[in-house]
Amino acid sequence: MIRTSAKRHSSYRILIIEDNDDHAELIMRSLSGGKGALELDRVSDGEAALARLGARLGDGGAAILPDLILLDLRLPKIDGFEVLAAIKASERLHSIPVVVLSSSEADSDIARAYGENANSYVVKSADYEALDRSLAGIGSYWTETNRALGA
Amino acid sequence: MIRTSAKRHSSYRILIIEDNDDHAELIMRSLSGGKGALELDRVSDGEAALARLGARLGDGGAAILPDLILLDLRLPKIDGFEVLAAIKASERLHSIPVVVLSSSEADSDIARAYGENANSYVVKSADYEALDRSLAGIGSYWTETNRALGA
Repeated sequence: MIRTSAKRHSSYRILIIEDNDDHAELIMRSLSGGKGALELDRVSDGEAALARLGARLGDGGAAILPDLILLDLRLPKIDGFEVLAAIKASERLHSIPVVVLSSSEADSDIARAYGENANSYVVKSADYEALDRSLAGIGSYWTETNRALGA
Repeated sequence: MIRTSAKRHSSYRILIIEDNDDHAELIMRSLSGGKGALELDRVSDGEAALARLGARLGDGGAAILPDLILLDLRLPKIDGFEVLAAIKASERLHSIPVVVLSSSEADSDIARAYGENANSYVVKSADYEALDRSLAGIGSYWTETNRALGA
């Protein structure tokens, strides 16, 4: 896809960083049930996430950036906290909202995520209906209520 | 009110930092239409906001903290960007989600807010129905979908 303009593009791009195939499928299905046109992209480990975002040292930053990032914490290769820290330390990536989506309800994980400037923390419920509601809430809030930079 | 426990208290506390009385009333009315029990507290300038949060140097931190902060940007005495920077620089306050609620749609304001680690930026629409929808979206997302530290 070629974006003709950096501003007010019609579809909203979400990068899903999730190693569990079942969870990823469920997330993508739930988000697709919303109103707006979405482009969903998924990577399954932290290294692939940073590569997709062009966050590596020396990367020219040519990557098309997402409007929202959903980030699992327990990830192969580079874990979610490191991915979050890299995003928030990057001037180019810093303004992209990052919603941590984790099955962990541990205060230590929640505190660390907010400490690394996660925009939001959502618990990935084991109950399918509760998870579906959370995902619908994420979809509508970030695509309709929140204003992204350059949107 | 006396909070008997720091965790899982039944009502969700929102601090509204807004100098315009009409806007404040509208915000409080819209938020009150949601499902959960809310405690709404409002201050009308940046200095009062920092005092309420006990963010001043040497403050013992005895203030009861809100679960969410709605922050206008143009404020008397101390402006919203300074309030935001003070909150995010404070270890005690840093994890409280701050939603900037401003009538400004300027990229410079949006970029600066995200740069100061605002959790979210919502445009205060001049259209009443659109603003009401945004406020309902803020209420349901942050009280139901997002997980606060210690909630």
